[in-house]
Amino acid sequence: MNKERFEKQLAFILEADKEKNILRQTHLSGLGRRENDAEHAWHMAMMIYLLREYSDRDIDLAKTMMMALIHDIVEIDAGDTYAYDTNGQKTQKERERKAADRIFGMLPDDQRDELRALFEEFEAGESAEARFAKVMDNFQPLLLNHSNGGADWKEHKVTKAKVTGRQRSSALGSEEIWKYTEKLIDENVKKGSIIDE
Amino acid sequence: MNKERFEKQLAFILEADKEKNILRQTHLSGLGRRENDAEHAWHMAMMIYLLREYSDRDIDLAKTMMMALIHDIVEIDAGDTYAYDTNGQKTQKERERKAADRIFGMLPDDQRDELRALFEEFEAGESAEARFAKVMDNFQPLLLNHSNGGADWKEHKVTKAKVTGRQRSSALGSEEIWKYTEKLIDENVKKGSIIDE
Repeated sequence: MNKERFEKQLAFILEADKEKNILRQTHLSGLGRRENDAEHAWHMAMMIYLLREYSDRDIDLAKTMMMALIHDIVEIDAGDTYAYDTNGQKTQKERERKAADRIFGMLPDDQRDELRALFEEFEAGESAEARFAKVMDNFQPLLLNHSNGGADWKEHKVTKAKVTGRQRSSALGSEEIWKYTEKLIDENVKKGSIIDE
Repeated sequence: MNKERFEKQLAFILEADKEKNILRQTHLSGLGRRENDAEHAWHMAMMIYLLREYSDRDIDLAKTMMMALIHDIVEIDAGDTYAYDTNGQKTQKERERKAADRIFGMLPDDQRDELRALFEEFEAGESAEARFAKVMDNFQPLLLNHSNGGADWKEHKVTKAKVTGRQRSSALGSEEIWKYTEKLIDENVKKGSIIDE
C-alpha cells in the first residue's frame, strides 16, 4: 500500500460525508423530512441496478452506478440548486466547476481524472450511462413526490410545462420510463398537484 | 413494459425509502447527527469503487456495490442491531430472515431471488465480493468514528477485544486495509478512546 495514495483516497471519502448534510427539496415518502444528496444518490444507484432492463441502450452497470453515487458531490461547495430555480441555475455551472476542481482534486491524480470525467460525462448527458443515470435523477424524486400526493410540486406551485421540461431528458435514456413519467405527470395535473399551463 | 412487473419494482423501491429512517450508532464526521442505513450504504458503495485496488481478490464491481446498497434493507423490519449489542444479536438472524422474506418478496420473482441471493451471499461472507463488501461495512464506520476522535467507542465503552473481534473479518477481504485498521485501533487505544483489555 502506498500510504500517501491511500490517505488521499480517505480524505476524499471523508469529504464526501458532507453530502449527507446537503438537503434537497424532495421529501421522503410518507411525507417525511427533506431528503439529502447521499440518500438520493443511494436510491438512484439501486434503481439503476433494478431497472436496467428499461435502458434504451446497454450500459456499464458499475460505471452508471458510480456516476449516480457522485453526481451531486459538487453541491458540498455549490449547494443544491432546485430544478425549478431559474436564478440559481444561471450561476450553477460556474459554482459547480470550482467545486469539482477542489473536491476531485483531493484524490490521487488518476482517480481525480477518472471521477472528474465521470462527473462531466453525466453533465453532458450523451453516453448511454449518463442518459440512464439522468433518467434515475429525474424519476427518483418524481416517484417520492408522487407517493406524497405531489406535495413538493404543490409547495412550489410548479406548472406542467416546468415538470415536463425537466423530466423530458428521460426520453433520451428510457422510452418506457419516459412514457410512464408522462402518465404520472398527467395524473398529478388531473389531481391539481401540478398547475395545468 | 410489463406494467405489473414495473409496479412491483416500484413498490420495492418505495419500500426501500424507509432505510433513510433507520439510524445507526455511528455519527457523521464533524461529530454530526447519527447516520442512517441509506447513507451508510451509499458511502460503502462509493468506497468499494474507489478502494477496489485493495481487494485481495478480483471482484465484480457492480455486484459488490449492489450488495452494499441493499445489505441493511432487512433492518426496515428488524431494526439496527449495534455491532456490540450481544443480546440483540441472539435474535438478529431470525428477525432478519423474516424481513428478507417480506421485503425481497415485493419484487418480481426473478429479482426477488437475485437480491435475496446477494443478501445471503453477503451474510455468508465467503465470496470475493462479500468479503470486500464486509471490509467496507467495517471500515466505513471505523473511519467516521476515528475522524470524530473515537466518540462512538467512548460512548459505548468499547474494549479493544470487541473492536478487533468485529473488525477482524476485514482480514479476509483486504490484507492492506486490515493492517491499516489495526493501526487505527492501536492509535485509538493509546488515546484512550478504546478500552485496552
